[in-house]
Order: sequence, then structure tokens, then C-alpha cells
Amino acid sequence: MSSVSELTGEIREFVRERNWEQFHTTRNLLLALVGEVGELAAELQWVPDSEVDGYLSRNDNREKFESEIADVATYLLRLCDVAGVDLSAVVRRKLEVNRVRYPADKARGVATKYSDLDSQ
Amino acid sequence: MSSVSELTGEIREFVRERNWEQFHTTRNLLLALVGEVGELAAELQWVPDSEVDGYLSRNDNREKFESEIADVATYLLRLCDVAGVDLSAVVRRKLEVNRVRYPADKARGVATKYSDLDSQ
Amino acid sequence: MSSVSELTGEIREFVRERNWEQFHTTRNLLLALVGEVGELAAELQWVPDSEVDGYLSRNDNREKFESEIADVATYLLRLCDVAGVDLSAVVRRKLEVNRVRYPADKARGVATKYSDLDSQ
Amino acid sequence: MSSVSELTGEIREFVRERNWEQFHTTRNLLLALVGEVGELAAELQWVPDSEVDGYLSRNDNREKFESEIADVATYLLRLCDVAGVDLSAVVRRKLEVNRVRYPADKARGVATKYSDLDSQ
Repeated sequence: MSSVSELTGEIREFVRERNWEQFHTTRNLLLALVGEVGELAAELQWVPDSEVDGYLSRNDNREKFESEIADVATYLLRLCDVAGVDLSAVVRRKLEVNRVRYPADKARGVATKYSDLDSQ
Repeated sequence: MSSVSELTGEIREFVRERNWEQFHTTRNLLLALVGEVGELAAELQWVPDSEVDGYLSRNDNREKFESEIADVATYLLRLCDVAGVDLSAVVRRKLEVNRVRYPADKARGVATKYSDLDSQ
Repeated sequence: MSSVSELTGEIREFVRERNWEQFHTTRNLLLALVGEVGELAAELQWVPDSEVDGYLSRNDNREKFESEIADVATYLLRLCDVAGVDLSAVVRRKLEVNRVRYPADKARGVATKYSDLDSQ
Repeated sequence: MSSVSELTGEIREFVRERNWEQFHTTRNLLLALVGEVGELAAELQWVPDSEVDGYLSRNDNREKFESEIADVATYLLRLCDVAGVDLSAVVRRKLEVNRVRYPADKARGVATKYSDLDSQ
């Protein structure tokens, strides 16, 4: 079991050992995150919905996919570390907001944005 | 202290209560992640590097920034849950890979991609 | 028929009238482009492959989709204008590169990246 | 001078010669666009605002930057072609919308979103 703060600490140590803090400004990390999300998207760009499960069941495809997931997560954790964001706390806070925005009985089974839910 | 799997479980429960599993295919969640990263980028699009810290020190700006971070993290955790990816494990595995790709003594203080490191 | 440079000129004039040149640095426009691509992705995030055509045949969905396409294109043209990139020229040059990377007889019917084509 | 439709036609021909139409569904092209925007973002991820102009004045950097711009534009044009979107028309229509949303006298010199403009 890994806490978010443990992972963040391991990444911070990796960065510190390489003296890379100088590159890790908030906007630089944001662009790096965008770059990695792009690489993740590219993994599935030619894989139709119906073939995704089969595609990701092959070892080499899964390895590349997981490697890109890791890059996205690493930059997200690093961005939070640099910008002073407590990732676990903000995820939980947003879940609270969304529990109010999307009451289970109104939102059940519909992919409607909360601002359009009332008019349903 | 929050484990990654605890957060993942809370998100899964939120989704289950709303019967939203039907929308959460891998490619749908990937596009949703892209959408949220876009919203995060938009938060800082008109804030030059030199003003980011000041900008994020104001409460309303920080709140919006953290809310977008939360959305990115939530879809990333949900994507991992649906695609069967152990996020902590893949982050740690990639750190191992990167420790080899970027030896501390070669990579120190340079933002060079590993494939170009040897020619430095 | 619209030339790329005519569209670019109309956008430049729109920006000039509002004295927005001060915000349009290369990295700001890049983040703005990312933001709009995110909004475009969000338009189709819950629409499975098999339902996209039907979805986009409904007027309100198509209007939102085209509006996001327009935002992406506008920031791309503006980014090129600010960074001194001749968009038509670079697209044609890249087509030339890709004609060499992806010879028609080798690449026909396969979505393989050029760097992996030889091993096919 | 290049019209948007001429570029679109050249890309369509390139695709047709390789029998790649089968891969070019709307969502596939959207993910491919995201991938290329990610590569473009990566070009400037470690280049602070103050160094962008100098960075892009070096030939090898500019060449890579322009190559990524070309990829983004190519997938955007291809996406429009496949989805039946008249890119020039939607850009002009959105400019009209934005002329109303952002009246020059109200929007001058401020990077405020139109929905917040009235409260200024």
C-alpha cells in the first residue's frame, strides 16, 4: 500500500539527486504533464473502442501504456509538490462537491453535466 | 495519509452509486482526462512564469487551480482502476527505469532527454 | 475560398482591436491551445465510436463541436503568427517528409509508426 | 498563398494513397491531435518564457517546433475533413461570436473571460 505522499517523496528525491528543481516551475511541469498525456493518448489513437481490451492484454502494448500512465502520474504528483497542492485532500474535497452537484438519484445513469441536470 | 487505493476506492464507489460504469470505458476516460488537463492548462494560460506564484497565492485562483488538479487526478485514478493499472507500482517501476536512463552524475543539472544524454 | 494568411490576418486584427497582443506570448498561446483541445476532447468524451456520427448529426451537438474546432484553429493560427511560422509551408514540408518516411507501398493499410515500418 | 481546402486536399490524397482512411475515424483523429499537441507542448516544456525567442531562433529547435506545428495542423485539417467541418467558415463564425462577446471597448487590455466581463 502506497500513500500519495510516499510516492511524492520518492519523486522529489529523484529530482533532487539530479539537481532538476531548477527546471520544475509550475508552468514547465504543466507543459510536461500535457506532453505525457499526449503520449498516453497516442497509445490508443488507432485502437477502436471495441479493440482496446484485446490491445491492452498484449504484454508489449500494456507495458507502453503503463509506462505513459506512470509519466502522467509522476508529473502530476511533482506539479502538486511544487505548487503546494495536497493531492489527496483536493480529490476528496472535489468528491464532496460532486456529491452535491450530482445527487445519486438525479444523476443515475446519465452523463449530463451538473449545470444541465436540473433541466432534465 | 491516503493510499492511492483508498482514493481509487472512494471514486469507484461514487461512480457505482450513480451507475456511471457504463460510460467509463478506457478511451472515454482518456478523453475525459484530456479535457481536464485542458481546463488545468487554461487556469495558467494568461499567467506569465514570473506571476504564477503570486497568482496562485490568491484564494479564488488557488481554489480553481486545485479543483482542476482534482479533476485530472480523479480521471487518472479512475482510468487506472478501469484499465487494471496499479498506479503506485507503475510509478515506482518507471522511477527504476529512469534511474538507469538518467544516472545522477550524467544528468545532473541538464534537462536533456535520455536518448541524447550520451552525446553530451 | 480562404487562404490561411487571410484567416490569420482577421484574427490578428481582432486581437489588435482589443490590445491583447500583450497576452499572446508563445507559451501562453500554447497553453491556450491545449485548453481548447481539451474542450474539443470533452465534446466527444462520452460518445462511443459507434455513436459519433449520429451525435454530430444533431444540430446543437454539431454547433458545440464546430465551435471548439474553431477555437483550436484560432489559437493554432495565432500561435503561428506570433512565433513566425508559415503554417501552409510547414504542413507541406512535413507531407514531403512523410512521403519518404511512409512509402505508399510499405505503409499501405498499416498504422505502424515509420520507425517500426522496416521491421514489418 | 494556400487555401485551407487545398491543404486539406493534399492531406486527403496522402491518406488515400496509403489506404489509411480506415484508421481515420473522428475519435481516432481527435486522440491523434491530442498526441501531437502533447509533442508540441514538450518542445517548450523546459524553456522559460524569457528564453523562448532565443530558443526558437536556433535552427534545430525551430525545425522541431515547426515539425510539431505541422503535425497538429495536419490532424486538425484531417479531422475537419472527416467530420465534415468547413474550417474557414467555423473560424469566421466564431470570430463573429467573439466580436459580440468581447466588445472592443470593454475587452481592451483585459484577459477576462466573456462570462465575467460584465462584472468588471
